[in-house]
Amino acid sequence: MTRSAKKEASRDNLLNQGVSMLMRQGYHGTGLQEILDAVNIPKGSFYNYFDSKEDFGAKVIQHYVDPFITQLTTHLQRSEPDALGAIQCYFDELVAELEKNDFKGGCLLGNLMGEIGDTSPLCQQSLQTAVTRYRDLLQSGLVKAQQQGTVRTDKSAVEMADLLINAWQGALLRAKIEKSPAPVKQCCQDLLGDFFRPPASG
Amino acid sequence: MTRSAKKEASRDNLLNQGVSMLMRQGYHGTGLQEILDAVNIPKGSFYNYFDSKEDFGAKVIQHYVDPFITQLTTHLQRSEPDALGAIQCYFDELVAELEKNDFKGGCLLGNLMGEIGDTSPLCQQSLQTAVTRYRDLLQSGLVKAQQQGTVRTDKSAVEMADLLINAWQGALLRAKIEKSPAPVKQCCQDLLGDFFRPPASG
Repeated sequence: MTRSAKKEASRDNLLNQGVSMLMRQGYHGTGLQEILDAVNIPKGSFYNYFDSKEDFGAKVIQHYVDPFITQLTTHLQRSEPDALGAIQCYFDELVAELEKNDFKGGCLLGNLMGEIGDTSPLCQQSLQTAVTRYRDLLQSGLVKAQQQGTVRTDKSAVEMADLLINAWQGALLRAKIEKSPAPVKQCCQDLLGDFFRPPASG
Repeated sequence: MTRSAKKEASRDNLLNQGVSMLMRQGYHGTGLQEILDAVNIPKGSFYNYFDSKEDFGAKVIQHYVDPFITQLTTHLQRSEPDALGAIQCYFDELVAELEKNDFKGGCLLGNLMGEIGDTSPLCQQSLQTAVTRYRDLLQSGLVKAQQQGTVRTDKSAVEMADLLINAWQGALLRAKIEKSPAPVKQCCQDLLGDFFRPPASG
């Protein structure tokens, strides 16, 4: 490995460890030293990559959301003629993943919005950016579905994307305390399968 | 004050302080000593009321939800002939309260579901109880509204109550990071003002 590839690997290691620890223990429950110990990186090196624990948290948030953006983008590109079906497939995959993990964890964005969304300005900014990237992508999928006639057009795609994100976040919290997929499945059924559909003609 | 009244007052003091600190700093960010210092109660006395920090957290959750149950019950009783209007009034009050507090805090239930909903069994149980009490009350209001013809009857009241709670929790998280009432207002408008309404008869 070149020196810069090594550096990149260390940074990625730290971020992956951050995602997993913040998910399990929350922001305040995770000490910096604990993260360093887990990846075996000295404190000095940490500060080569991040300015502070707060800066680290902000970067972890973006690192966490990246694969979701990629996964949804792939679905939307693959199912060109059926954007609503692509969105449904994507959420089905998330539900399956959640069941595999016994409903532990939930969504790091939701957890951190709750814990530090109004106390850490850096993380607040990063959460806003992450949610907006995600919302814009969902919105573009819903716009396509509107054009394809599978989603109602009397509500804006951005309003529906926001509602879907919010209901999904709340449903994930419920799934977590109830250890059941019912809340997240119901959320998709209520919105994608009912509220977002155009009125039956006829 | 009698001795038992004093004891009750100390317990209430601790619980009120708990609500405010857990809201501001999260469960892991709040040390027991910090709470004791704030209410000027020695550690020994704390253990007269609570078995552990976790037990305290579980009791704080119930203490937090009590006034919301009372507030919604009052609305539902007051507006006997218009249950949907009563539910809307209740949420309007919550939105106004949120604006007054500059969208800080959000909902302690949502925050703690995210932070410790799957790691503290005692708090998980307490969160389940709190959410179920709240959901059952909302459900009873929606059943009345169905009987009064203001809410659709092709979906069950319990399903709608769950969706409302989940979307509201997610919207509160968004309001918190965006410092805006738009997400919570939109949530009420989308669900109470649209999705829950019976189809317009033609």
